[in-house]
Amino acid sequence: MINALGRVLPEIIDQYGTTRPFAGVWATQPDLHRHAPVVKVVRPGIKKLMASLADVFRRIPIRNGMTLSFHHHLRNGDGVVNTVLEVAAHLGIRDLTVALSSVFPIHAPMVEHIVSGVVSALDTTYLTGPVAVAVSHGALARPVIMRTHGGRARAIICGQLHIDVAFIAAAATDDYGNLTGRVGPSAYGALGYAVADAEHADYVIAVTDHLVPYPLTPISIPQTRVDYVVQIPSIGDPAGIVSGSTRITQDPERLRMAQLAAQVIDAAGLLRDGFSYQTGAGGTSLAVTQFVRRLMEERGVVGSFALGGITSDLIAMLECGLFHKLLDVQGFDLAAVRSIATNPNHQEISADMYANPFNLGCVVNRLDCVILGATEIDIDFNVNVTTGSDGIIRGGSGGHSDAAAGAKLAIVVATTRRGMLPIVVDQVVTATTPGESIDALVTEQGIAVNPRRADLTDRLCAAGLPIRDIAELRAAAYSADRPQRLHTQDRAVAIVEYRDGTLIDVVRQVATYD
Amino acid sequence: MINALGRVLPEIIDQYGTTRPFAGVWATQPDLHRHAPVVKVVRPGIKKLMASLADVFRRIPIRNGMTLSFHHHLRNGDGVVNTVLEVAAHLGIRDLTVALSSVFPIHAPMVEHIVSGVVSALDTTYLTGPVAVAVSHGALARPVIMRTHGGRARAIICGQLHIDVAFIAAAATDDYGNLTGRVGPSAYGALGYAVADAEHADYVIAVTDHLVPYPLTPISIPQTRVDYVVQIPSIGDPAGIVSGSTRITQDPERLRMAQLAAQVIDAAGLLRDGFSYQTGAGGTSLAVTQFVRRLMEERGVVGSFALGGITSDLIAMLECGLFHKLLDVQGFDLAAVRSIATNPNHQEISADMYANPFNLGCVVNRLDCVILGATEIDIDFNVNVTTGSDGIIRGGSGGHSDAAAGAKLAIVVATTRRGMLPIVVDQVVTATTPGESIDALVTEQGIAVNPRRADLTDRLCAAGLPIRDIAELRAAAYSADRPQRLHTQDRAVAIVEYRDGTLIDVVRQVATYD
Repeated sequence: MINALGRVLPEIIDQYGTTRPFAGVWATQPDLHRHAPVVKVVRPGIKKLMASLADVFRRIPIRNGMTLSFHHHLRNGDGVVNTVLEVAAHLGIRDLTVALSSVFPIHAPMVEHIVSGVVSALDTTYLTGPVAVAVSHGALARPVIMRTHGGRARAIICGQLHIDVAFIAAAATDDYGNLTGRVGPSAYGALGYAVADAEHADYVIAVTDHLVPYPLTPISIPQTRVDYVVQIPSIGDPAGIVSGSTRITQDPERLRMAQLAAQVIDAAGLLRDGFSYQTGAGGTSLAVTQFVRRLMEERGVVGSFALGGITSDLIAMLECGLFHKLLDVQGFDLAAVRSIATNPNHQEISADMYANPFNLGCVVNRLDCVILGATEIDIDFNVNVTTGSDGIIRGGSGGHSDAAAGAKLAIVVATTRRGMLPIVVDQVVTATTPGESIDALVTEQGIAVNPRRADLTDRLCAAGLPIRDIAELRAAAYSADRPQRLHTQDRAVAIVEYRDGTLIDVVRQVATYD
Repeated sequence: MINALGRVLPEIIDQYGTTRPFAGVWATQPDLHRHAPVVKVVRPGIKKLMASLADVFRRIPIRNGMTLSFHHHLRNGDGVVNTVLEVAAHLGIRDLTVALSSVFPIHAPMVEHIVSGVVSALDTTYLTGPVAVAVSHGALARPVIMRTHGGRARAIICGQLHIDVAFIAAAATDDYGNLTGRVGPSAYGALGYAVADAEHADYVIAVTDHLVPYPLTPISIPQTRVDYVVQIPSIGDPAGIVSGSTRITQDPERLRMAQLAAQVIDAAGLLRDGFSYQTGAGGTSLAVTQFVRRLMEERGVVGSFALGGITSDLIAMLECGLFHKLLDVQGFDLAAVRSIATNPNHQEISADMYANPFNLGCVVNRLDCVILGATEIDIDFNVNVTTGSDGIIRGGSGGHSDAAAGAKLAIVVATTRRGMLPIVVDQVVTATTPGESIDALVTEQGIAVNPRRADLTDRLCAAGLPIRDIAELRAAAYSADRPQRLHTQDRAVAIVEYRDGTLIDVVRQVATYD
């Protein structure tokens, strides 16, 4: 099977089934209904508060082969996944599928659970650290399913990812399960990725270290969707939330690229009142935001909203009136956690609302511009943020493909090479985001515009910006050393699903290099 | 067929189907899944803003025989139902089912639409004014389905009430359908009854007179559930929201009853920290709340939450710290509208969360006490709030049956007679709320306790409160005049569904009296 990116992919994948080839960003017309969970009854007087996680396991009961879901808002400070899997191991449960929205280095103990057979499958959007390395080397018999943030919501809502038990890390909850991430000693802010799980899982467990009197308000997930509440000593360490660099890059080359990216947005005609914007949390992204901010201030432009992944620089722009609103699916630092708890213009949104392609319009559809990163980008503008060029998994789409598909202007900002490794390449090792949805690549050597966007090329030329053909940038990237060619085994260790559920690529088990 | 209240009811009702007899408050164990709407896609760039309601009708398209739903938060000031039905009539649509959560005198134009065949069926929880009179006299060929507030949410969520098109009166919305009732020139506060409609209808239309820039926050119903947005000159007049008396009764007899009701709550041992409370908006209810407030102040008791139907007296108690929280499914006055827009301890909740018996626990389950009214109450404590003793529909359960089923202590406060009409009777004309869920009746002649609550009798006796057998109260009610006996035709003009969907009673077409 060959998909629309020209990737040769298996038609059937063991333990996954028949694949549907990626056919284009908007090619899929769903013929689906929302997943319809069983209706249950909780009468007056019934208690939801359980004494321990083990009690919850026995009460449901959690059995071999079930799918347990978790969300990653505590990021590299998360304490819930490790605690729950330890209980599962202790109780002798085996063959679990872990549907964890993102996997971080702190989840290293999962490697042992994989080895011992407690965990036999993984469903995620982003995978880094020891679990990623183990998976890349074939530790799991079943291939990991890697989705986008919007694609994960889509899969849950459409019944394609069936969750037996969802564990929600509740920074605060009452004894009836009204819960939030916004307050409490382990507050982490928005809990957007957990909402679909809570809506559609067979059982929903609020796991908390901060039980408050009934009724908790404001409510992020309501009592009507929570079966049990259990208290543990700690749900994690919010200090581990901080993602990426929190400091703007000082590298002159990267600062130049950031300025160029801001100029691209400007030349595209988007920096007017109502401007909407998303970016990541890396040092270069932060620099782009500063240049965008400067232009907005110079012009007296007031943006409508920033979306994300919210960081302190966006909060500063909200607070000084440069954006009217922040739409927040997860906080990227503790400033975001504080802001969402107090500022009514800082709105929590679900992953469904953020980026699900199969609903009545998600927020990425309303983005003017998104700034994206790339581990690799090829001459068709396809982006790899899933694996290194060594084939080892060290990321995943997260919201990358979603925002690229939705935004009027999706800009990848990347140097043409990183040390000896070319970043602009003939063909990405793993395709995460299709080039069809990328409008421009900004590098230290100039800007390449997707040929699909002749209108954008015209505008950038008119603004006197340095336009290059992407093949030239690729040539510059390759000039010093030809890239090593990666050899892999045939076996797919991970399936890369596009946001609509089609197969955009697979990650094959790593082997040798030449 | 005879149900658990001894009501002789038809086994099959024309245009309704086979009936399921009411079998007890918690007798029904559902074997259901949540209704699963079709998954749709809205791509970037697609506009939801339509030029007119007629355009929306043509776009969907709305056809003969469809079910259109509406909510009643603007109460007797609602302008959306009349406007939409006028468009339907103008376009020649016929045979519509109107699923309007409550029907008020302002909806009088619906009578013409019934006569002309535009509207052929009605699904509601409360029915008063000209439409109620017309229905009682057999204007509709199909029987009206009368549900409870929680039962309406249950029917929609479980797919028993299928909505083709839900019209949401949006006090403010953006052009992508993020909407709220809290702000705007026609702000009405909480929109709890509209949430299930928006979640489960095939199409959802935001009808507004206040379009705001994208994105509106805070969001009550999100863009992901709204197909189209349409602007009309006015969604209604919030002055029509005010419900019932806004002044405390000055009648000494009613004040005595109110004080007695507060003493019952106290004697039951419920007036302690964490107390939770619901009441209506009538003059006697307001008086009960004042006596409760006085007791709480005297004792230094701080309640957890008040629930409702929120009125200014409850807001005053929130603001002076007598309750920690208000849980609000609809505002009963303009003070409630102002409070919910600004006070984070005043939480909007859906009808599902308020009172749906088929979820993981609704808020009425957590009520200590509810104060209820009655048009009639019989010696088995069954309450009629649906029809007058003349058989004419002039109300309906609303949340009456829901709160009674959930609360630890459900108190009906009513005089034994109103003028010449007995209120405490042998058998209610129409059973709305089963006596099984009523704990006590407080009258001007003393208190009757449901025999099921011997524990409560003991406590009230110990407190020296005037306990009477309900048969004595009935005798007092009948002493002056024997009640007239109501004769009706056989035909059911309305079906009274208990909150679980079973048949608790029917309203038969009115005829003659003797």
